[in-house]
Amino acid sequence: MASAAASRIKAGIVGGTGYTGVELLRLLSQHPQVELTAITSRKEDGMPVADMYPNLRGRVDLCFQTPDKAALEDCDVVFFATPHGVAMSQAKTLLDKGVRIIDLAADFRLQDTQMFERWYKMPHSCPDILAESAYGLVELNRSRIAGAKVVGNPGCYPTTVLLGLAPLLEGGRKLVDTSHIIADCKSGVSGAGRKAEVSTLFSEASDNFKAYGVAGHRHHPEISEHLNALAGGPVGLTFVPHLVPMIRGMFSTLYARILPEAMDTDFQALFEQRYADEAFVDVMPAGSLPETRSVRAANQLRIAVHRPGNGDQLVILVIQDNLVKGASGQAVQNMNLMFGLPESTGLTHVAILP
Amino acid sequence: MASAAASRIKAGIVGGTGYTGVELLRLLSQHPQVELTAITSRKEDGMPVADMYPNLRGRVDLCFQTPDKAALEDCDVVFFATPHGVAMSQAKTLLDKGVRIIDLAADFRLQDTQMFERWYKMPHSCPDILAESAYGLVELNRSRIAGAKVVGNPGCYPTTVLLGLAPLLEGGRKLVDTSHIIADCKSGVSGAGRKAEVSTLFSEASDNFKAYGVAGHRHHPEISEHLNALAGGPVGLTFVPHLVPMIRGMFSTLYARILPEAMDTDFQALFEQRYADEAFVDVMPAGSLPETRSVRAANQLRIAVHRPGNGDQLVILVIQDNLVKGASGQAVQNMNLMFGLPESTGLTHVAILP
Amino acid sequence: MASAAASRIKAGIVGGTGYTGVELLRLLSQHPQVELTAITSRKEDGMPVADMYPNLRGRVDLCFQTPDKAALEDCDVVFFATPHGVAMSQAKTLLDKGVRIIDLAADFRLQDTQMFERWYKMPHSCPDILAESAYGLVELNRSRIAGAKVVGNPGCYPTTVLLGLAPLLEGGRKLVDTSHIIADCKSGVSGAGRKAEVSTLFSEASDNFKAYGVAGHRHHPEISEHLNALAGGPVGLTFVPHLVPMIRGMFSTLYARILPEAMDTDFQALFEQRYADEAFVDVMPAGSLPETRSVRAANQLRIAVHRPGNGDQLVILVIQDNLVKGASGQAVQNMNLMFGLPESTGLTHVAILP
Amino acid sequence: MASAAASRIKAGIVGGTGYTGVELLRLLSQHPQVELTAITSRKEDGMPVADMYPNLRGRVDLCFQTPDKAALEDCDVVFFATPHGVAMSQAKTLLDKGVRIIDLAADFRLQDTQMFERWYKMPHSCPDILAESAYGLVELNRSRIAGAKVVGNPGCYPTTVLLGLAPLLEGGRKLVDTSHIIADCKSGVSGAGRKAEVSTLFSEASDNFKAYGVAGHRHHPEISEHLNALAGGPVGLTFVPHLVPMIRGMFSTLYARILPEAMDTDFQALFEQRYADEAFVDVMPAGSLPETRSVRAANQLRIAVHRPGNGDQLVILVIQDNLVKGASGQAVQNMNLMFGLPESTGLTHVAILP
Repeated sequence: MASAAASRIKAGIVGGTGYTGVELLRLLSQHPQVELTAITSRKEDGMPVADMYPNLRGRVDLCFQTPDKAALEDCDVVFFATPHGVAMSQAKTLLDKGVRIIDLAADFRLQDTQMFERWYKMPHSCPDILAESAYGLVELNRSRIAGAKVVGNPGCYPTTVLLGLAPLLEGGRKLVDTSHIIADCKSGVSGAGRKAEVSTLFSEASDNFKAYGVAGHRHHPEISEHLNALAGGPVGLTFVPHLVPMIRGMFSTLYARILPEAMDTDFQALFEQRYADEAFVDVMPAGSLPETRSVRAANQLRIAVHRPGNGDQLVILVIQDNLVKGASGQAVQNMNLMFGLPESTGLTHVAILP
Repeated sequence: MASAAASRIKAGIVGGTGYTGVELLRLLSQHPQVELTAITSRKEDGMPVADMYPNLRGRVDLCFQTPDKAALEDCDVVFFATPHGVAMSQAKTLLDKGVRIIDLAADFRLQDTQMFERWYKMPHSCPDILAESAYGLVELNRSRIAGAKVVGNPGCYPTTVLLGLAPLLEGGRKLVDTSHIIADCKSGVSGAGRKAEVSTLFSEASDNFKAYGVAGHRHHPEISEHLNALAGGPVGLTFVPHLVPMIRGMFSTLYARILPEAMDTDFQALFEQRYADEAFVDVMPAGSLPETRSVRAANQLRIAVHRPGNGDQLVILVIQDNLVKGASGQAVQNMNLMFGLPESTGLTHVAILP
Repeated sequence: MASAAASRIKAGIVGGTGYTGVELLRLLSQHPQVELTAITSRKEDGMPVADMYPNLRGRVDLCFQTPDKAALEDCDVVFFATPHGVAMSQAKTLLDKGVRIIDLAADFRLQDTQMFERWYKMPHSCPDILAESAYGLVELNRSRIAGAKVVGNPGCYPTTVLLGLAPLLEGGRKLVDTSHIIADCKSGVSGAGRKAEVSTLFSEASDNFKAYGVAGHRHHPEISEHLNALAGGPVGLTFVPHLVPMIRGMFSTLYARILPEAMDTDFQALFEQRYADEAFVDVMPAGSLPETRSVRAANQLRIAVHRPGNGDQLVILVIQDNLVKGASGQAVQNMNLMFGLPESTGLTHVAILP
Repeated sequence: MASAAASRIKAGIVGGTGYTGVELLRLLSQHPQVELTAITSRKEDGMPVADMYPNLRGRVDLCFQTPDKAALEDCDVVFFATPHGVAMSQAKTLLDKGVRIIDLAADFRLQDTQMFERWYKMPHSCPDILAESAYGLVELNRSRIAGAKVVGNPGCYPTTVLLGLAPLLEGGRKLVDTSHIIADCKSGVSGAGRKAEVSTLFSEASDNFKAYGVAGHRHHPEISEHLNALAGGPVGLTFVPHLVPMIRGMFSTLYARILPEAMDTDFQALFEQRYADEAFVDVMPAGSLPETRSVRAANQLRIAVHRPGNGDQLVILVIQDNLVKGASGQAVQNMNLMFGLPESTGLTHVAILP
């Protein structure tokens, strides 16, 4: 018993007052190989975590601490559930102590630091660490993540778009017109975070539907960088995010035109084979219509491949829970991989339905 | 035509950026006898109203103005859709110019200024005007309102509780045990206003139910003052408000114990007779189960009288749209009365269902 | 007064127990030039309309009647808010009596009867009347509707897609690649009607998002027939409808690739000019992000034209209330036009927000 | 490994197509000591469970079977997630084979068979088995359940009302006026089940609030029978259930008048002591305001004790997830107890928030 406890991974969370923070707490507190040792918040020093998040009453005994009090350097891994820019400011100190880092913000998502600076309005303070870091989309980058000391956990939209398009683009395949791919994406409101803002008030966001960020969204360069890498060249992407009056869930409808020479491709088989060994990517049977609730609170992404009228237009439907496979669940999946655990450890919760 | 326009009521709104403000704009812009002439906001000077409230695009051409620019003293009536304390600070100046005032905040709801100061944490700055003002619950106070220059528009909860209990208490009737009346009330989220707060974010308030203010709520003294006046003596009230994940709507379940000597009373008839001539109070047939959506966006309150098992416990169900009969619609009803118009003018919209 | 009443349009509704029925009742009961004279339902004979739809209590006194009792032939106009196939079975009898017909189902939407029969699984019983009928999308077909005796009121999705694409296609314009247009559409749940079905239960449809009909939807041939007519040739359309957890509202995101020779076109100006005189189509300023709630319960459609990065991909955002401009409001608009009334009569309600 | 599997409890589910069925599947499929061996449905014979409930894809491999095919008599325990009347018709056959029974319907909730017959409109077919059965409210009936072969799992409302009042009534305590207790209860829509009905359609039930069953609800006699037993005499209860537009969650506001001789009681301490050893009943600190989301998808009930103004009116707030502690989670808790497992086995999931 003592030895089992001794061998557990000591995990800390920086900035755990937002939705990715509470979701990390939910997952890590039930993870059989993890011991939660610290959680920081500048504002809430001394407050029991369970006072802010009543679902944790009786389950998580930690209190928030200011960063200086929390012994983060004694952790084996620290998750950053913070605004952009925080992880890169603390990375070096922690790495020097041998602590591994998983950042749920954008600091380690884009290798192109100019692009980072343009979209996030701040200079990148540790390009050397960035160069050594791994992009934490496990299904596309498994071996690199396994050996990484710093992982940039992907954005929620990029997770769906990249996994939904990868089989079409990988390895220089010439299957679809890569100059004009469309990603029409829909997210639940929790994707906007727990910040007090008028636009995400219940009375503003419920019984309503809208697009946003049509002129530009920070996830666009992230998607593009990795699409280009997959395809081995520039991919033209139109990306339109929308806001759905639901708490959790993300649905991406992807449109790609099949090239004339690829009209005989069995796309269903292509997707099934690509993800045959993936625990968290479910290629549904042909004709399936996935619903976001089928993955509510679970680390699962589902894909359905459609080709209406057997024509030249592919329609790929991708769903996930934006807070789990799109954020905190994926972060735990990365941790498992980095520490040599079976990838599904602590991530086998069945989705909540209804 | 010109003379008709000339005779229309010139109406101004102070602080129209909240939900009662936009609802006033919706109602007044469609009112056949009103000309909207000014709307103020310190922060949004120069912004077209329709930019903040896109439902008003093409329907309301006004821009927000700072209070000093808006010619409020040229109005016939000014509505205050402001935080508590604003109306009383501007009342004297406007009254001196002959402008009538309808305050949707609490400044003129409580005659007991000590009680006001205890609950609203500010001194009352014009007790003389308060003494002359009328409490704007038309069905209980019609004649006084008709002659008033200042009206305190009732709170949303008080409107339902007072109209739901009045027939039992008025005129010193001895029908129910007035020492222990219970009001278990439920409100849609718009009742909390348009202020950015974490607790009313979509991701916090939807798919959830909770009580609040159990230890004390500002509407409690307002209800009590008027209940006591109705009953001609102290009424013991337990008031528990709850938050419902819906935008609009209020539902109050009122419990009163029938006195032994009143067991033969026909309560259904009592309520029907009391409100027989009221356009905006609908006493439903015996056994009815009202739904808040049946009054969505309409100036209507409905009451259903229940007496389970024909026992000694009355259960009165009361519904309204908190933003209409519970706020802005009632304010327009008051205006109609103050200006000698038929009370229903501009208030006959059919509720939106579904 | 008597003469005014005498000159009012006598309107009947067949099958008014669904959502388009109650919405017709709401609009027609407030229409200054209409007298509601009959509403039929086989099942609910004798039931007051207000018992089924409590928002109509005190506002509509009609009872449902069986079709044989209702004197539909004495009406000036009859609206069919029925399942597909009913209007065409009764059209001849009514037309012979001089009654005009507005069908909210699909019987008079498609001129191609083979296409009708394939998608609606029934033969078309009156192709001669169909040939004389008008497709009731006023902004595209005004003169023909004005003289028609039978109008096929458009489907909700077609209304948004056709009005959103018309300026690009009309008059043989060569502006966009018409071989691959994409309509990614999202509808509130009321679009599925008031039929008891598991898939639209609250516990199934709320906090959820899904696509449906990806392999084929009845509105697809309707859109295509009219797109082809607009463009003067075949238009390739991919149409994917989705279900949004909101009661009312429709949002269509339309993607069209700009042709090389049309890259200098001012698309914003094109749309503004096309709809400059339309009361119910609002082309919003460049960069606008429309929200469905801005038209809740109003007969209004709004369009925003986007061209991300000034590239060759147009993104057209179109919103409406599916039950108003997408159904019953449009039907009243058609009636106004057929009877020579100003088109906006009875349709000027301001949208409900929040 | 083999022996571990061999020793697992073989569980069957009769009628698993409703919400309590899928919730049982979610909980039992993750229970470390259970092997799911059969699930029956007359209509869906042969359909994989995961086709109806996509959250179970990849997690539950069972197919629905007709009752005659399913080897229920080989199970150790059979759960009935069926309409009322089914369990009692099959109980004897299963008991003769040594199978234990947990009924989630009402067949074994009421010892008073006349009351059962009045409210459920059917004769009770096995009063002898009923007499031997245990009412499955663990915290009030633990020892009897541990030895029972048949357990009647409590209704959702009774769970909250009984646990919320028990400390006040048990052991003949004279603390509150037991002649007039009020239970104002609010339930999420999933409590109405997965049956296709107009009244629980999304477009009917969302953005709405209503009471129902005011004249009488089947849970009333169930609550009363057990309240009377607790108090050792008749308890007068007014019970008003309401419908909340949320999927899961139940909130009961209980009102009891403190007797003059009990005014000095420390009610907070009373509740804390009563439930000090209960894993699934959380008495919150004084002044707490519980929210239903804090127990979403968790087998947890929370109680907050209020006494506004330190007067004579107690207000007890009780929350649970109606599908978990109010139904399927409680059923698993009963199973654990009946089979000698630690009561929390398989029931330690952290609630989902947001």
